[in-house]
Amino acid sequence: MRRFASEKSRIILAHRRNLYSVVQNSTSPLYPQRFSQQPHLCSSFLLRFFNTAPSPSSSSSSSSSTDSMANDYSSTPVTVDSINPKVLECEYAVRGEVVTLAQRLQQELKDNPGSHPFDEKLIETILVVTRDEEILYCNIGNPHSLGQQPITFFREVLALCDHPSILDRSETQGLFSADSIERAFQILDQIPGRATGAYSHSQGIKGLRDTIAAGIEARDGFPADPNDIFLTDGASPAVHMMMQLLIRSKNDGIFCPIPQYPLYSASIALHGGTLVPYYLDEAKGWGMEISELKNQLESARSNGINVRALVVINPGNPTGQVLAEDNQRQIVDFCKKEGLVLLADEVYQENVYVPDKQFHSFKKVARSMGYGEKDISLVSFQSISKGYYGECGKRGGYMEITGFSPEVRQQIYKVASVNLCSNISGQILASLIMNPPKVGDESYESYTAEKDGILSSMARRAKKLEEAFNSLEGVTCNRAEGAMYLFPRILLPKKAIEAAKSVNKAPDTYYVSRLLEATGIVFVPGSGFGQVPGTWHVRSTILPQEDRIEAVISLFTKFHKEFMDEFRD
Amino acid sequence: MRRFASEKSRIILAHRRNLYSVVQNSTSPLYPQRFSQQPHLCSSFLLRFFNTAPSPSSSSSSSSSTDSMANDYSSTPVTVDSINPKVLECEYAVRGEVVTLAQRLQQELKDNPGSHPFDEKLIETILVVTRDEEILYCNIGNPHSLGQQPITFFREVLALCDHPSILDRSETQGLFSADSIERAFQILDQIPGRATGAYSHSQGIKGLRDTIAAGIEARDGFPADPNDIFLTDGASPAVHMMMQLLIRSKNDGIFCPIPQYPLYSASIALHGGTLVPYYLDEAKGWGMEISELKNQLESARSNGINVRALVVINPGNPTGQVLAEDNQRQIVDFCKKEGLVLLADEVYQENVYVPDKQFHSFKKVARSMGYGEKDISLVSFQSISKGYYGECGKRGGYMEITGFSPEVRQQIYKVASVNLCSNISGQILASLIMNPPKVGDESYESYTAEKDGILSSMARRAKKLEEAFNSLEGVTCNRAEGAMYLFPRILLPKKAIEAAKSVNKAPDTYYVSRLLEATGIVFVPGSGFGQVPGTWHVRSTILPQEDRIEAVISLFTKFHKEFMDEFRD
Repeated sequence: MRRFASEKSRIILAHRRNLYSVVQNSTSPLYPQRFSQQPHLCSSFLLRFFNTAPSPSSSSSSSSSTDSMANDYSSTPVTVDSINPKVLECEYAVRGEVVTLAQRLQQELKDNPGSHPFDEKLIETILVVTRDEEILYCNIGNPHSLGQQPITFFREVLALCDHPSILDRSETQGLFSADSIERAFQILDQIPGRATGAYSHSQGIKGLRDTIAAGIEARDGFPADPNDIFLTDGASPAVHMMMQLLIRSKNDGIFCPIPQYPLYSASIALHGGTLVPYYLDEAKGWGMEISELKNQLESARSNGINVRALVVINPGNPTGQVLAEDNQRQIVDFCKKEGLVLLADEVYQENVYVPDKQFHSFKKVARSMGYGEKDISLVSFQSISKGYYGECGKRGGYMEITGFSPEVRQQIYKVASVNLCSNISGQILASLIMNPPKVGDESYESYTAEKDGILSSMARRAKKLEEAFNSLEGVTCNRAEGAMYLFPRILLPKKAIEAAKSVNKAPDTYYVSRLLEATGIVFVPGSGFGQVPGTWHVRSTILPQEDRIEAVISLFTKFHKEFMDEFRD
Repeated sequence: MRRFASEKSRIILAHRRNLYSVVQNSTSPLYPQRFSQQPHLCSSFLLRFFNTAPSPSSSSSSSSSTDSMANDYSSTPVTVDSINPKVLECEYAVRGEVVTLAQRLQQELKDNPGSHPFDEKLIETILVVTRDEEILYCNIGNPHSLGQQPITFFREVLALCDHPSILDRSETQGLFSADSIERAFQILDQIPGRATGAYSHSQGIKGLRDTIAAGIEARDGFPADPNDIFLTDGASPAVHMMMQLLIRSKNDGIFCPIPQYPLYSASIALHGGTLVPYYLDEAKGWGMEISELKNQLESARSNGINVRALVVINPGNPTGQVLAEDNQRQIVDFCKKEGLVLLADEVYQENVYVPDKQFHSFKKVARSMGYGEKDISLVSFQSISKGYYGECGKRGGYMEITGFSPEVRQQIYKVASVNLCSNISGQILASLIMNPPKVGDESYESYTAEKDGILSSMARRAKKLEEAFNSLEGVTCNRAEGAMYLFPRILLPKKAIEAAKSVNKAPDTYYVSRLLEATGIVFVPGSGFGQVPGTWHVRSTILPQEDRIEAVISLFTKFHKEFMDEFRD
């Protein structure tokens, strides 16, 4: 890992070089042309939106040893200059510079205890570190890594499906709840040959898709067809699949919110398309304004971009807003009118923390407006990694696709077939989250207690963090309505911005790095998600457990005050 | 599903149209140019190697209803003409026409019992059908779907890791072996926070990679580095990752054996590259001849193709040969000399059935020749889906990458990061197959009995099928040395070839369809894998359990005799 980290500056430079030559050699119209006087166009295009300064690695001092290391590979056939430039272009900012710095501090603390004004324990709060310096990133919503416990019923069913030969044993009655045993039998009956070790249908086991479709129907009050469900290893592969289907060239654009979850920018880059941004309105609680969508669409089209789809993340990541139903109706109408596929990232559908907002799926909204299967193309992404379950490591999820012709569906099916199927444990969990224990089931009470405990704790933590941010000088934070994040804006003093420039860092990266060095707390700079140029944000998860949240807040508050004292204009 | 199936002919036609226009609009040199006088170049390029006739679907009678159905989607934005042409171009033949026919027969038997000269039970032998007409494909090696049982120790550990809260309960001692409990504790200790529900490091949990690296060392007698291991959801995503890295355009070629496992052709098509074929020599037990490699490389290069990597499948799929060590050395030298990345598909490493052959990993061979980390770029793919374990549904596997510079590795790591991590159950199983119970462990005896039982039964079934094929008129079958398949050649009489032409089918597809209609047995035509033009093959798995194998053989024998009587020249 450290070997990789020490390569970062070279990579970035090579990346820039590569983009430069790509653009110089390219004759295709690249969006947005208003940046076309700049030499590295793609790079600058992303930079503008992501608001990042060129970022020499903190480990640039090792570049000479690096050079000699790289040269040793001179007799091997593959170099960064000869790999797919789309891979080079792809960025995945949530695992970027600040996390590399955190890893370095970690090692320094290990090699030299007391070398920093915080102990390893605190970084553990945020990062969770093993004896082997392996790091799990809290910059990605990863609840179990920060101490959240799995839902007992779900894990009981999973264990029984993995090892069905204990189902009939008497000891099993004492170890497992009666309804988990019954559910395991039901699920096994749905699996051909009861073989949880066999490849399934490429879309996932039909019986589990039936269960999921029934769950969607119960949620929305509109029919759902199991043949529309594609079970996937988490939501990410489903997003990639849609990007692979829709993107033919750099001229194909995908509308994405800014700020966005960087899976989208990464996937668009990997598939060679263009990210067309629309800005969420921070002043209106990160609202989606149709006028902004219209302006950006017009601008993209006038630049020769064929905008194919609109990504909406609801509840929002990293912004935490929950869309109002009215707003959703406008978005549906906009997509319908403009001929855009609506890609609805609904993985936080269970994570809503305020009484005046509710989650409504885009399919429910579209159907309630009278739009049927053949009126609008709509994909909903769901995941077992979020919600109150947070089963990130199990890699389960699905997409529900509606409004695609049989020919196009056949193509989606074919792409799914090439990877055979998603993992069966993830498939089982996806069916369980859409069909949890019901009133009267033995596990119902404990399940409800676990679920409510997790969600109400998340709501409390979100509120505490939101209040803490808003109490600080120059910090404003929208209400945490949903998802697992806060994205406060930090009004950085001019002196701080200059200090950042002098060390060649983006101002928000500089702020976050200073925070990390002073306290061991790891936030992600806003530039990883995109932000209005000239504004600076950080993303924090709400996931540290409650016994740690106060410590995080008090350390952060102390740091921020000292930072402002140092740099106040 | 049937809705999709009925679309096939339209899709194929649309596909052809689309390829045609792609090629007409293309100015890039496409390989092989000797086919450039043909209108649909890419298509014909693949067709030549895969030896398939244009294939109108058996369900073309439904195309008119299909047309009206498709038209209903006229107000939705995505059509087959506007999706990514690489998706259209991708073929995944093992789930093709014959399986569609099997599904139809299935339905007919259900609707009208006795409508075919075999009962549903037999198709179940081969396809495994549920009450819902869901079909699992034996055309893909999927042992558990055909009744193979999972290894008890592996499933015990998996269940305990899924539900660790029972580890300390007294009932657990009665239900699980002592060493499975101990192993579960060990594995949980290797997982940060013991959280099997958390995202892991993007390459997989470090402790599990340590175990796998130690397993590779024990197998090869040469060091393995856990940092070289990337755990993946089966081997397929690993193959895609390497194709994504290596392929920049149609001008980049990947050397593949013909016959090949169609994952490779599909992945190359999806990433927009060119498959450069080399033919295995059927007369020499499907041997790899260096002279063939040299000729094909020269030919590709003279056509402007930059050949970047060589795929070797050992033991072979669909061909079942195990490479001799001498031959492997020649291949390593060839890759070294020609600057090719060696992509070694070693997923059948445990499946060797003959005493005079042994599996040797390409890394072991390269290291034993004195080639070190910096001398040759080598990727080994391994999977939990094959071997004696056959855990296809768990989607686990890894690639071990050696001989890539730190900069290139950083890029591979980044692509892995975008999908966060592979599923933890699959990761755990990958560590278990590389570190099974040892002498002295409580489970050792039962584990060994299960493993040997499965492998010796596979060997017996392979031998029986091989002998049956070779006893038939006009059928020759190479020795089944390894993997899970036989790929016999069928010398089809001229009259049969003409009969196939008259119904617009490839001769091998015609033969296999007739077999299916007469007996309910599903083999895959050789055209799905590629074969020397003018030769015809079928692929059969060796996976039907022993109590069914005799029935398969006797039905097949009877069919073949009657077919030859009908068409003998």
